[in-house]
Amino acid sequence: WLRQTSKKSGVTFCSSGGDSSKESSRCSTPVLDADRSDRLRDKMRKRIESGDHWFSLEFFPPRTASGAVNLISRFDRMGSGGPLFIDITWHPAGDPGSDKETSSMMIASTAVNYCGLESILHLTCCNQSKEKITAYLNKAKHLGLKNIMALRGDPVGSEWEDEEGGFNYAIDLVKHIRSEFDDYFDICVAGYPTGHPEAETYEADILHLKEKVDAGADFVISQLFFRADTFLKFVNDCRAIGIKCPIVPGVFPVQGYQSLRQLAKLSKLEVPEEITRVIEPIKDNDAAIRNFGIHQAVEMCRLLLDSGIVPGLHFYTLNREVATMEVLRQLGLWNEDPRRPLPWAMSAHPKRKVEDVRPIFWASRPKSYIYRTQDWDDFPNGRWGNSSSPAFGELNDYYLFYLKSKSSKEALLQMWGEELMNEQSVYEIFTCYITAQSNPCGHKVLCLPWNDEPLAPETNLLKDELEKVNRRGVLTINSQPNINGKPSTDPIVGWGPPGGYVFQKAYLEFFTSSENVTALLKILKKYEPRVNYHIVNVNGRNWTNANDMQPNAVTWGIFPGREIVQPTVVDPVSFMYWKDEAFALWIEQWAKLYEDESPSRMIVKYIHDNYFLVNLVDNDFPLENCLWQVIDDMFDYFYRRCSLQTF
Amino acid sequence: WLRQTSKKSGVTFCSSGGDSSKESSRCSTPVLDADRSDRLRDKMRKRIESGDHWFSLEFFPPRTASGAVNLISRFDRMGSGGPLFIDITWHPAGDPGSDKETSSMMIASTAVNYCGLESILHLTCCNQSKEKITAYLNKAKHLGLKNIMALRGDPVGSEWEDEEGGFNYAIDLVKHIRSEFDDYFDICVAGYPTGHPEAETYEADILHLKEKVDAGADFVISQLFFRADTFLKFVNDCRAIGIKCPIVPGVFPVQGYQSLRQLAKLSKLEVPEEITRVIEPIKDNDAAIRNFGIHQAVEMCRLLLDSGIVPGLHFYTLNREVATMEVLRQLGLWNEDPRRPLPWAMSAHPKRKVEDVRPIFWASRPKSYIYRTQDWDDFPNGRWGNSSSPAFGELNDYYLFYLKSKSSKEALLQMWGEELMNEQSVYEIFTCYITAQSNPCGHKVLCLPWNDEPLAPETNLLKDELEKVNRRGVLTINSQPNINGKPSTDPIVGWGPPGGYVFQKAYLEFFTSSENVTALLKILKKYEPRVNYHIVNVNGRNWTNANDMQPNAVTWGIFPGREIVQPTVVDPVSFMYWKDEAFALWIEQWAKLYEDESPSRMIVKYIHDNYFLVNLVDNDFPLENCLWQVIDDMFDYFYRRCSLQTF
Repeated sequence: WLRQTSKKSGVTFCSSGGDSSKESSRCSTPVLDADRSDRLRDKMRKRIESGDHWFSLEFFPPRTASGAVNLISRFDRMGSGGPLFIDITWHPAGDPGSDKETSSMMIASTAVNYCGLESILHLTCCNQSKEKITAYLNKAKHLGLKNIMALRGDPVGSEWEDEEGGFNYAIDLVKHIRSEFDDYFDICVAGYPTGHPEAETYEADILHLKEKVDAGADFVISQLFFRADTFLKFVNDCRAIGIKCPIVPGVFPVQGYQSLRQLAKLSKLEVPEEITRVIEPIKDNDAAIRNFGIHQAVEMCRLLLDSGIVPGLHFYTLNREVATMEVLRQLGLWNEDPRRPLPWAMSAHPKRKVEDVRPIFWASRPKSYIYRTQDWDDFPNGRWGNSSSPAFGELNDYYLFYLKSKSSKEALLQMWGEELMNEQSVYEIFTCYITAQSNPCGHKVLCLPWNDEPLAPETNLLKDELEKVNRRGVLTINSQPNINGKPSTDPIVGWGPPGGYVFQKAYLEFFTSSENVTALLKILKKYEPRVNYHIVNVNGRNWTNANDMQPNAVTWGIFPGREIVQPTVVDPVSFMYWKDEAFALWIEQWAKLYEDESPSRMIVKYIHDNYFLVNLVDNDFPLENCLWQVIDDMFDYFYRRCSLQTF
Repeated sequence: WLRQTSKKSGVTFCSSGGDSSKESSRCSTPVLDADRSDRLRDKMRKRIESGDHWFSLEFFPPRTASGAVNLISRFDRMGSGGPLFIDITWHPAGDPGSDKETSSMMIASTAVNYCGLESILHLTCCNQSKEKITAYLNKAKHLGLKNIMALRGDPVGSEWEDEEGGFNYAIDLVKHIRSEFDDYFDICVAGYPTGHPEAETYEADILHLKEKVDAGADFVISQLFFRADTFLKFVNDCRAIGIKCPIVPGVFPVQGYQSLRQLAKLSKLEVPEEITRVIEPIKDNDAAIRNFGIHQAVEMCRLLLDSGIVPGLHFYTLNREVATMEVLRQLGLWNEDPRRPLPWAMSAHPKRKVEDVRPIFWASRPKSYIYRTQDWDDFPNGRWGNSSSPAFGELNDYYLFYLKSKSSKEALLQMWGEELMNEQSVYEIFTCYITAQSNPCGHKVLCLPWNDEPLAPETNLLKDELEKVNRRGVLTINSQPNINGKPSTDPIVGWGPPGGYVFQKAYLEFFTSSENVTALLKILKKYEPRVNYHIVNVNGRNWTNANDMQPNAVTWGIFPGREIVQPTVVDPVSFMYWKDEAFALWIEQWAKLYEDESPSRMIVKYIHDNYFLVNLVDNDFPLENCLWQVIDDMFDYFYRRCSLQTF
């Protein structure tokens, strides 16, 4: 909303919340993350009460589909630093309410649903009908968005008349949201530390802000400014006339000469002399300007936070990450190792706030899992067996923008081989992925169709064993070590609140040839009932020694004063849905890189058609993981039989 | 039904079941006890298929209220041997369908609901209107009874005419049950190994039996007989004409001269000469006759089981336990250490079949818990937090027959003191209960108002510490040690299927003086967040450091191929219901033993009015239990303060 303008006013701290955030008198979740079911204004209030400074990040929607893919992977990276929220600007020219992957609406929805980020969607109202605005808000609500930044927006044409009964000011939008959606949305409005450029006076402008707050806005984010004093005076002036809600400074780290000039022009702000004096001489040196911008932003943020009246910092990122992350790091606000409330990546959709059990199969594809369960009416809570909707939606479009690999087709071909010679070439790619080493053509294998990220630190614990078995054609796509009561704060396997203990059963999931499966089925008899297995091929031919309907908990945690949490299960029913996806990825992500009928494509297709997908659980979590022994026995059995046949 | 007569017939094995026993396509319970949700005929079928012999026990309703109390405690004792079911005879003269504590209906309901026993209620139909029978069946269904033994019953008067449209034979009752209640009930009918005394011929009688089975009976229990051959021939004859359902022999261990003669007369059976020859000479020696009866029954049962066509044995106990238990022990059918599916005593009411979480507070009063939750529509499953009905029913009548102490008022006075001198007298009683030693008057203290049984083996692990703290006025009523992953087959703390691991957090619940509580609250600060506490007095004044709405799981188990089971929680909400009951027991069970205004009564009342009920959980289950240190610190603090005040 840097480009937006609007008349303004304001008053009173819209607290409410309290009751509406509780849906029943009893907890239905273990409240592992106490904030998880709070609305944004309550999270903000708690952080203010505890004196715990926050940061938040503003992004604008991308122009292109590949830009959207990049932005979403930036959300994931910047989300790991622990922002209180992000916000997505509204670009009237970019079809902002559409289903296009570049629309403001879709980007905000993806941030909430697939990246698990608390998000604010901007919305501008000028030149819009009430019906259109209501439709946007309904769509946002349906998508799980809970927060709106209510703005006027830029009128079309330079001259502009108030429209009778229409939206002329942001306050009209605030009133409309409150009248049509009651207390559903948290509403943010804009504040102008130096007065809105169109306002008659600075004093008139903060009175407008008070009117917006009185009309139902929950908090204020300020337009950018260049001096801490400017903002602090603004806050004091707001307080003096009775604006009680949080007022968050909008911080703009200077990142380049051109962007600063352009922004100043758009915001009708004058860049102070002490800044121009520094950057004019270095205007052609981007790195130097960025370093100055970082330095200057850090200095200003320190003054703001030290004032004691600034609860958190909002950053205008311009969709870049380096400068903002560096400022946050220097301020000590970037939380490199945020506590994981659960072992998997949560969605922030309000419908999913009770969700705390998932099948392990989608561990490396959480966005796909969220997509395939988006139509569920309720989510497993406490026990997977209670899930009332075991039906998974189809995943037909493997190129959905939030699922798309960060790597280009060219990069994938370099990693996975321009030309495959045989099945062993594929084994080699898997092995290189595990070892993080280069393939024969000298390219590191940073992802696989089933894993768009390098090996997780936890999986690294199994690296040596994984390397050995992949080399021999046990193509692992998911695994976890057994854990017998490590502290919940363990940097590698920990999750949930401190003071707890986490546990895991060893798990191994892989593709392998039908010859191996034949041997495996023989030797698995020796491991009953210690090892549970499911083995299935692309046609659904399958073997298991587990109860058809009984999920097996493979990750759980015990915490002070709470019920047991078991966030991950091996569920036989879900496995059959997963196997369709897992097999399809061979074709969709890998085989299709190659020409039709090419040998490389045929090799991948052969594996898809003939290999089996196997999962193994070692139930005896206090003992040493026996799954490597199982694989060893399988190879022994296979080669013993082969050698017998030879002689 | 030893006294019943009826015409009979029979055919086909009524299997069905299968689908009706599954209520949804997904497990909603962890299926810890695979049989738990099966109906009786399915349990029977599975035992037959696995070749696992069972036994079952027949009882008749008692004449007096105190007889009912004794019988119920016998159910608990004999239930621990693992009968497949028990059955309760129908006594038309004893108001059998009423709510009286001695009625057949109430005794069967108590066996199912409060003792957790699969039970069959007998029902006789002659001289009964259809409306009356339907009303009985509706009542039985409402009470959670699932099995009916359909009998004709003895007609009034010696001459008797068929009644048009009425119930003249057991088969009429079978047809009525199937027509009015479809497949809801499992139906058992009587078979006569020597033919019914009123039947024209033996052959006609087994044809009648076939008709009863064809009409919908699920299995047959035989009238008593004296020779294995008699029964084996009967089964073969039944099979020959196409009766395919299970036929269970009714075994009657001779227990006394008079009872044998009376029984033979009632059943119109002739006692074989080889028996009369033995017992006539010893007819005045009850012990000798019983020993002979045991010997003779064991011999006969061995022949029956060895035949390969007898799947289980049904015992006519005559409400006595010694002879039957001895026969079962000698046969190896008495399971002294039946696996506990869950750590607490389950109810067999079908509504409760998914129940697998309970608050720990009622650990020693499971019948009270069942009573107070009888109106719940659904039961916590997997997580207590999901319970939709946290409202506990009132427990106004502490003398409900299934809650009544096994001990008489006189015995209680002997145990708890004819006259109390001061609070220390009470401490001494608690201490004697813990140590299983005699009180100053030489009587062992075998129970307390909160514990009608001697110390559990598990609690015995804590005996030394419990003794020390009770001696000093920490009056413990419930406790468990911490357990960090013992095998589920552990004889003391194990539960659930084999191959699993069980865990516990240490728990301690006690009454203590307000002075102690003052000290406790001070020192507990040192133990945050490791120790959770709730402290409350009779008026509801309370302190806690736990989340008001968040239960704390204190017992859980991890099993192969299953979700986590957490059967016991410390629930803050339930604790407030429990404290009313816990405090009331001081008055209802103890104070009221003494005269109004007597010093003894005033002492107990003083404790009731002034002491606090405290519960403590040590969340750090892998470490050594710190709760004893907490108590020590409390005493230290208290005495340090006292000594400071003295000087």
